[in-house]
Amino acid sequence: MRILGISGSLRRDSHNTRLLRAAAEMLPPGAELELFDGLGDVPPYNEDVDVEPAPAGVERLRRAIADADALLISTPEYNASVPGVLKNAVDWASRPFPDNALRDQPAAVIGTTTGLFGAVWAQAELRKVLRYAGARVLDEELPVPTAELAFTSDDLLVIPELGERLHDLLEALVREVDTPVESSV
Amino acid sequence: MRILGISGSLRRDSHNTRLLRAAAEMLPPGAELELFDGLGDVPPYNEDVDVEPAPAGVERLRRAIADADALLISTPEYNASVPGVLKNAVDWASRPFPDNALRDQPAAVIGTTTGLFGAVWAQAELRKVLRYAGARVLDEELPVPTAELAFTSDDLLVIPELGERLHDLLEALVREVDTPVESSV
Repeated sequence: MRILGISGSLRRDSHNTRLLRAAAEMLPPGAELELFDGLGDVPPYNEDVDVEPAPAGVERLRRAIADADALLISTPEYNASVPGVLKNAVDWASRPFPDNALRDQPAAVIGTTTGLFGAVWAQAELRKVLRYAGARVLDEELPVPTAELAFTSDDLLVIPELGERLHDLLEALVREVDTPVESSV
Repeated sequence: MRILGISGSLRRDSHNTRLLRAAAEMLPPGAELELFDGLGDVPPYNEDVDVEPAPAGVERLRRAIADADALLISTPEYNASVPGVLKNAVDWASRPFPDNALRDQPAAVIGTTTGLFGAVWAQAELRKVLRYAGARVLDEELPVPTAELAFTSDDLLVIPELGERLHDLLEALVREVDTPVESSV
């Protein structure tokens, strides 16, 4: 089972990328996590250029999502919401309607910030957006606060309770992959 | 009084750009509206490159906002929220904290979609985001549904009630510009 990890931050030393690495260390047996590294190559969405063939960065994003069995997106929070960069990628991935790469794709959202709330608002908005785009989004969330103190030097979560929560969320994601999609009428 | 109009869509024949043109036709005396045309030149936000001097497209955006007396942003709605392109521009404009161009800037949000709801969710989220970034955001909103039928060939709003609402919103925006900012303690 292949899970595609997408970090919503382009920063080289992104805390959210670290959180995905922490997730990679505690996957259920048989699952592996691949990090998507092309978020910065996705151009600004413009319906005028949303034609076939798609821009190369968009094609790569859509293919990576389509080839994965599930998505794990770790989002920072900018101005109390989803980073524009990440939302722009979802806007491209949500097209063309209705046969987009996100449709019926199992997805989980996690996130971390250097502040006290761990991107809870960004996670809530992103879950809403992904559901709207057709993904099968887990209700679970994982807000990891005070990102600078949250990880060991091996990119593991310092607080055992958060590690357990991440473990449970990953198990739920794998279960969602194994759950048959009900055909819509 | 100079109002900067920002359309959240990069599409050449954007309905939201038309809505800004409709607004330009009904401004209170003494106010003028200038359309910002550089949204597509704003690169994806990345804290690693958020240094002085800022990328040229960002510098232009920040200067246009700082030079204006007020903002009027017209947003489409992608996946039940703010377009990533527009949110990304706000993410750049919200920096550096706390002396960003948006701080204490009077701002109003309007929007139109081809659907029945006129971007109400995108408008609500964008107001929240702009407030968080420090702007003085009007509570008023203007959801214009069924965009393809909403405008005359002269870019005026077909439905008189929506025209009146836009007129009232613009008057409220101008009043907000004339309202002294309370100094924070």
